Amino acid sequence: MISVVVVDAETPGNVGTIARAMKNFGFADLKLVDPPELDRDGEAYGFAGQAREDVLPDAEVVTFEEIVERFYTVGFTATTNEDARKHVRFPFATPEELAEELAGVETDVALLFGRERIGLTNDELARIDRVCAIPASADYPVLNLGQAATIALYELRGLAMADSQLPDVERERANESEIERFYERFDATLGSLEYPEGKRSKTMRLVRRLVGRAHPTTREITTLHGVLRAIERATRK
Amino acid sequence: MISVVVVDAETPGNVGTIARAMKNFGFADLKLVDPPELDRDGEAYGFAGQAREDVLPDAEVVTFEEIVERFYTVGFTATTNEDARKHVRFPFATPEELAEELAGVETDVALLFGRERIGLTNDELARIDRVCAIPASADYPVLNLGQAATIALYELRGLAMADSQLPDVERERANESEIERFYERFDATLGSLEYPEGKRSKTMRLVRRLVGRAHPTTREITTLHGVLRAIERATRK
Repeated sequence: MISVVVVDAETPGNVGTIARAMKNFGFADLKLVDPPELDRDGEAYGFAGQAREDVLPDAEVVTFEEIVERFYTVGFTATTNEDARKHVRFPFATPEELAEELAGVETDVALLFGRERIGLTNDELARIDRVCAIPASADYPVLNLGQAATIALYELRGLAMADSQLPDVERERANESEIERFYERFDATLGSLEYPEGKRSKTMRLVRRLVGRAHPTTREITTLHGVLRAIERATRK
Repeated sequence: MISVVVVDAETPGNVGTIARAMKNFGFADLKLVDPPELDRDGEAYGFAGQAREDVLPDAEVVTFEEIVERFYTVGFTATTNEDARKHVRFPFATPEELAEELAGVETDVALLFGRERIGLTNDELARIDRVCAIPASADYPVLNLGQAATIALYELRGLAMADSQLPDVERERANESEIERFYERFDATLGSLEYPEGKRSKTMRLVRRLVGRAHPTTREITTLHGVLRAIERATRK
């Protein structure tokens, strides 16, 4: 199980934003350390979208100590440019690397997001198990709390949700025999068009690469067949 | 060049959030179609962080038509569960796939983000070149506008910024000979401890895998050497 812990947030809106991202990416368990007032008519509920129905009202208020004792803890930090000599924030993982690491671990994990301006303190970072940093522009790497959590939860979604809303793209590609019949028909069409023999095979290679790279759907291939059929009819006259 | 276009946003705060994410991930050119009032003392500037200095005040107001004419356009849509039979939003790319596609293209690209509640209209989607959808929970796939843009810009950061703020992690792993010397020393230490001979090689394999997987830094290896040295000293007595 993966829990999300927001430590000492100042802005109710950020708590709402994080709750919404949790629901968007399949997370349910929100814990709050020293939270601001979360008014039902305020920004937390206003920013939470449908998470106002469950994630946000179900949030549990806890202490930092309880989290450290009960969970494998991952702290997110924006502060960076740390090198190997500074122990507190190094070594770190990117969210992508973290997703890979956690995929192989069977344990209760707490993802900790810190305060708006200063993040997690060095004392807090020293007590957690893993540090995670989001790669960003060297000119301005400091993400807003809600945005940092959104990216982290997006990258870790595979650990929390079985299926996304998106159709299984692999299965939407037209089957290969349909695509192959299209190439053959296209080649035959070129032949019927008295297309220069010297260019024909090069052109077919180009078509094959272009169409193949686009991963055509069944509907698209059917439509293209229709186009060829129309060409055939026209040239037969 | 990659431009970010926000179409008909209602909420100034979302425009500020998008401007901040742009600056965080190395993007600079913001264009606005039918923007809300962006007051210097309002939420747009309040949410923009350091982007209030450049990205936001430099934003250009444009029409949808101008964008379609001048750019390779990518429209982001939350509305999903589309199948191959519905043409307007299919086929689509995920942000990850889009990053790969655009890496090979030399052209001016506009990333279009739509209205808070209804996104880009079907008429608008029909006029753009590519549709992108962020994978999210099937139960609640509708992301907030600012959060969707944040994830998209994060995934596309490689196209906009040369370096992140993070140190080059590969080069921070201690060099292999240092790590190897540690294993040898560890094994010798086991020998000096009268560790059961039958278990020694298995234990060394475990240590090697554990430490290796953690990609130890030079400092960590040096520290571990120090630990072994201390053990050696203690057992010599």
